[in-house]
Amino acid sequence: MARIGIIGSQGRMGQAIAAVLADGKHECSGGVDKGENPEALANASDALVDFSSPGALKDNLHAAIGAGIPILIGTTGLDESHSAALDNAAGAIPVLQTGNTSLGVTLLAHLVKEAAARLGTDWDIEVLEMHHRMKVDAPSGTALLLGEAAAQARGITLGENSESGRDGHTGQRAEGAIGFAALRGGTVAGDHSVIFAGEQERITLSHTAENRSIFARGAVKGASWLIGKPPRRYTMNDVLGLE
Amino acid sequence: MARIGIIGSQGRMGQAIAAVLADGKHECSGGVDKGENPEALANASDALVDFSSPGALKDNLHAAIGAGIPILIGTTGLDESHSAALDNAAGAIPVLQTGNTSLGVTLLAHLVKEAAARLGTDWDIEVLEMHHRMKVDAPSGTALLLGEAAAQARGITLGENSESGRDGHTGQRAEGAIGFAALRGGTVAGDHSVIFAGEQERITLSHTAENRSIFARGAVKGASWLIGKPPRRYTMNDVLGLE
Amino acid sequence: MARIGIIGSQGRMGQAIAAVLADGKHECSGGVDKGENPEALANASDALVDFSSPGALKDNLHAAIGAGIPILIGTTGLDESHSAALDNAAGAIPVLQTGNTSLGVTLLAHLVKEAAARLGTDWDIEVLEMHHRMKVDAPSGTALLLGEAAAQARGITLGENSESGRDGHTGQRAEGAIGFAALRGGTVAGDHSVIFAGEQERITLSHTAENRSIFARGAVKGASWLIGKPPRRYTMNDVLGLE
Amino acid sequence: MARIGIIGSQGRMGQAIAAVLADGKHECSGGVDKGENPEALANASDALVDFSSPGALKDNLHAAIGAGIPILIGTTGLDESHSAALDNAAGAIPVLQTGNTSLGVTLLAHLVKEAAARLGTDWDIEVLEMHHRMKVDAPSGTALLLGEAAAQARGITLGENSESGRDGHTGQRAEGAIGFAALRGGTVAGDHSVIFAGEQERITLSHTAENRSIFARGAVKGASWLIGKPPRRYTMNDVLGLE
Repeated sequence: MARIGIIGSQGRMGQAIAAVLADGKHECSGGVDKGENPEALANASDALVDFSSPGALKDNLHAAIGAGIPILIGTTGLDESHSAALDNAAGAIPVLQTGNTSLGVTLLAHLVKEAAARLGTDWDIEVLEMHHRMKVDAPSGTALLLGEAAAQARGITLGENSESGRDGHTGQRAEGAIGFAALRGGTVAGDHSVIFAGEQERITLSHTAENRSIFARGAVKGASWLIGKPPRRYTMNDVLGLE
Repeated sequence: MARIGIIGSQGRMGQAIAAVLADGKHECSGGVDKGENPEALANASDALVDFSSPGALKDNLHAAIGAGIPILIGTTGLDESHSAALDNAAGAIPVLQTGNTSLGVTLLAHLVKEAAARLGTDWDIEVLEMHHRMKVDAPSGTALLLGEAAAQARGITLGENSESGRDGHTGQRAEGAIGFAALRGGTVAGDHSVIFAGEQERITLSHTAENRSIFARGAVKGASWLIGKPPRRYTMNDVLGLE
Repeated sequence: MARIGIIGSQGRMGQAIAAVLADGKHECSGGVDKGENPEALANASDALVDFSSPGALKDNLHAAIGAGIPILIGTTGLDESHSAALDNAAGAIPVLQTGNTSLGVTLLAHLVKEAAARLGTDWDIEVLEMHHRMKVDAPSGTALLLGEAAAQARGITLGENSESGRDGHTGQRAEGAIGFAALRGGTVAGDHSVIFAGEQERITLSHTAENRSIFARGAVKGASWLIGKPPRRYTMNDVLGLE
Repeated sequence: MARIGIIGSQGRMGQAIAAVLADGKHECSGGVDKGENPEALANASDALVDFSSPGALKDNLHAAIGAGIPILIGTTGLDESHSAALDNAAGAIPVLQTGNTSLGVTLLAHLVKEAAARLGTDWDIEVLEMHHRMKVDAPSGTALLLGEAAAQARGITLGENSESGRDGHTGQRAEGAIGFAALRGGTVAGDHSVIFAGEQERITLSHTAENRSIFARGAVKGASWLIGKPPRRYTMNDVLGLE
């Protein structure tokens, strides 16, 4: 059983990852939090997951390099300087940094690219999402990620071609537009659909999260997969064997 | 077989109604259009359907009263003066005036009322609709009709409680709000869903139109149902036995 | 805050109910299990929920009567003799016995009845359900409950009119039949849809459970609602104000 | 404008193709039926579509070869001898033979393959379809085609791994099984969904046909695409640029 160490173990994601590691198929080698040195943890682990803070990134990479083990980073709010540190670390160990650790969403984005590349602009693309009532922005980050995948496959810029939040007199749908609509309510963890609407037929590609544990599950799967891989930067696409 | 006469027979709805009447279970007694006198048609019919223009309404009611037969009016753009004429005619014959002749939508609105009246405001209400790419406004008239049904059942005003077209930083969903989202694409005739999202569960009530013939079909059903009824004003709810 | 006592507190449902009662809006007055006397618990509670075993029913009713408080019973496997005991207890206290404590499913069954009663047999009724991969029978009890609601509204017997598990050469759909289809996979807590398919249009009434806590939540809601009601037998319909 | 000739022009598909060719973007060069020689039609066309009968296949290929134009064959009931004739013709002209001319279904099958190849057997695969009340068999041919795509991607045999028409005591879902469920009702032209159900998340890939014209539309698109291509056998995948 692979031994996974958690950096940021008291955070929401850290706790969710600990719960996943308690499933009998993995081993949790421990956790560290703000102000604690990750070196001992790294030496006792086969891989690290890091959902702490940007300020801790360099120390975390250093510990992983010291122990010669891979690291998966899900920390948000990284900037250019962090990106250089990640590239640098990837010369010595496998490094996977991502803003979305869900395997299902990763695959969905890949399928959306495939579909958008094959179907002409006579198939209209719409992205629909639903989230719980507490969410404060729209569309969701995942909806934008899916729209971006479609735009990239069509060779267009999303910003110039999106129609979001239709209300009132909108006029006809613009040719080649990518539409967004957001539903809010209850405790919905996250539903996303990308609809390709053509002449008399529709293709819909959807993802449903029953709860937010899928991000923890994907992080564990990603970290486990990294063990034994050659040093370089990886993405969640690599974990699924995509391109 | 009931003999149905069509006023406005060359219009889009008039033609669709003629197609429905050709199904072997009904008889079309003929049609008239702008500038033609409806009296002979009324005398040869068991009921009239009127999808012509507001200006022709009084002559059409007069012809139906003269023949002593019911009339279903789907003409849009009526005002107060037409309303008085309808009330007046309803003293002599059965009169049904409506902006939406779909039986499915009529029933859906009734179910939405039932659900909204039973479920407390801890169940958030969202209305989603999808229509073809040529539609120029959002939300659809049917979506507003469904939202209105929900608002009425909750004893609130829709205008002051709707959240339509979410985009950007929206803040958390307002308690008791009724949300609207619009999708556009392809040749979709009209899909509507009303979602009640509670704690860990959701109820969704949906209607799908495969094509626009359902409005013609509902008009024929309504006109047939009126035959033999006592004089008064009726609604599509009455045709379904609601309330 | 209403004080709710749990009979069968170590069972799966008992534990789920305890978790719901910990939400800060309720108070758990304690729990008893096999071999323990429920009288002290009853005296310390405003209402009891009983998810224990048929053998304990009479003692539980006796304790509730002694304390003069209502009881909600979700125990399965009851027979005629238990039914008589429930009727008897209902002369002294409010009693609610049910096989399904979900408020959403209760409302859905009511809406299905309404729709089936209004739409003629030219609207075909289909019941679709999806559950997790461990479920060993099909259709689910809730699917059958929904089909039963539709059959009752149409004045037919479900057993003689159901088409379940279509496979191979089935022939055309029988007129007036109620169809069932079952999907199995993953960790799905329970999705149910009742589809009314007419000429060129469809109405779909659906319920989605994000997880199984909704049954515990409904039991707590039902028990709380019973407090202060006059003695008689109640159903989940009464909790929602239906009929 | 490409001139398309229709063999079997009085059949259901032949008439649907003629309707598509009347859209102003194509030209119909005429049609022939049983007992008529297709040679003159071939000489007046840029491509042929053949939805006639197996008995006419050889004459139709001969006419296409004589005129040096491509042919798309949607005739069903072909056997080994026809296959040899198709291979032979493909030495001289572009030949596309298929049992399903829908572009949407072709793409969906491709996406199903992609998803099944990437997701392990801890993601359960279910295929759901709904068709009109007159359909006499289940699952639909398209549902089987989609299940076959999934089985192929997983390197298993569909026949030995399918669970179709669950009813009664089924036991737990078999690991690696591909499930099928069929809904029947109303006038539904054809809805298909392939569901991948994993731990706490689901991916659903769906196709909806608003009516059966999509098969005629795909046939016209396929025949137009063949014009100018080098002689060989093609599939609908080639029309979409897949593989």
